Amino acid sequence: MTYCVGLYLRDGLVLLSDTRTNAGVDHISVFCKMQVEEVPGERVLAMLSAGNLAITQAVWNRLQEGVELSGVRHTLRSVPNMFRAAQLVGQAVRDVFAADGEALKAQEVRFDISLMLGGQIAGEAPRLFLVYAAGNFIEATADTPFLQIGEHKYGKPILDRAVSFDTALVDGVKLVLISMDSTLRSNLTVGLPVDLLVYRADSFAVTLRKRLTEEDAYLRIIREGWSSALRQAYLEMPRPDWVP
Amino acid sequence: MTYCVGLYLRDGLVLLSDTRTNAGVDHISVFCKMQVEEVPGERVLAMLSAGNLAITQAVWNRLQEGVELSGVRHTLRSVPNMFRAAQLVGQAVRDVFAADGEALKAQEVRFDISLMLGGQIAGEAPRLFLVYAAGNFIEATADTPFLQIGEHKYGKPILDRAVSFDTALVDGVKLVLISMDSTLRSNLTVGLPVDLLVYRADSFAVTLRKRLTEEDAYLRIIREGWSSALRQAYLEMPRPDWVP
Repeated sequence: MTYCVGLYLRDGLVLLSDTRTNAGVDHISVFCKMQVEEVPGERVLAMLSAGNLAITQAVWNRLQEGVELSGVRHTLRSVPNMFRAAQLVGQAVRDVFAADGEALKAQEVRFDISLMLGGQIAGEAPRLFLVYAAGNFIEATADTPFLQIGEHKYGKPILDRAVSFDTALVDGVKLVLISMDSTLRSNLTVGLPVDLLVYRADSFAVTLRKRLTEEDAYLRIIREGWSSALRQAYLEMPRPDWVP
Repeated sequence: MTYCVGLYLRDGLVLLSDTRTNAGVDHISVFCKMQVEEVPGERVLAMLSAGNLAITQAVWNRLQEGVELSGVRHTLRSVPNMFRAAQLVGQAVRDVFAADGEALKAQEVRFDISLMLGGQIAGEAPRLFLVYAAGNFIEATADTPFLQIGEHKYGKPILDRAVSFDTALVDGVKLVLISMDSTLRSNLTVGLPVDLLVYRADSFAVTLRKRLTEEDAYLRIIREGWSSALRQAYLEMPRPDWVP
């Protein structure tokens, strides 16, 4: 499995993905699930992926070669805006399904893919999308300022409670790492290292891209700190006085 | 869906179940998912259920009528120990599958059931089991002193971090309510009220059985308190100093 989370904030975007892929529990590898396209001064786009690795890599390869959208061949470096970018990713997913869907079905392999696409292209504000296996997509809004793909349940409670559109980027980094930590702790199929991307709105350049390994000092602070903070918070909650 | 959680502690058992059943999102009802058998001075058993309501009710009805195990008809009031009780529940599940499995398959309804069985019968210590749809089962131990059925992921991180075999019953109550709250908050198919059972080891009588509704004062403390405790804990974590 995989866990990827994206925050859509007033100040920009915070994206985090784990790197574990597994074909069974005895075949585990590290793959980066975050692909970035940057044209400084003009656009930054990042695509995060969950699901079957062969399918997600096929989608990314097609996107790099160019995908036809309404008769015109585009890449993420040429689409005019983020809506077209999401359509392009969706079309790439549909193209892979058209090419491989039948063969996968014959082997009883599910066409399992979900993607997150975030970024900004000059002329509009940053946007964040979740693209489904059918190639259709939804977009994060200020009401629901985060999206998740993959193994999303363990890390959702903290996001539900603490993320708002006005969360600062630096706090967003803290939150996605806490959310990832809950997932890492409870599910073996999500694993370190993790890839982080921070994008400050209207900067049109990657603000920060960083891989955090097990040895990373801040990640350790989060991992140990959050566990003891949770235990402390639970200890400080009042006890029920009606338990005999 | 459903969320049920059981703690297996040195001092006894703490069991909690929600009450929401749904057939689609527009058909929601309240059903108690916790059934209790008590023979004061001799035994207390509680069964918690998740899955298809018709199947879980069929299992409980069969258990009340009596189920044949190795040629002898038993109920949960007559089995000699908890291992036999778990076998009896597993046999009831298999009997329902034998009776209804084919008809369910014809309607493409999955044979979806999982059960938790906890309690104590005089002569041995309290025990806690999780019974699968195949009728086989696992048992909680001091190493892993909790079991969950149904929508278990949202409420797992706090249990992974805070429950140990030496947790006091009163703290166990706090923990299962926090775990339930995370689930309620993040998943609509799990709903209030919740049913709580506390069993103190070697008491051979239900220590506490209580339904907590939305109006319950302590449940409110947990729900509001845990949300703000989580937010507070996140705010108190150090910020990364490397985010530009």
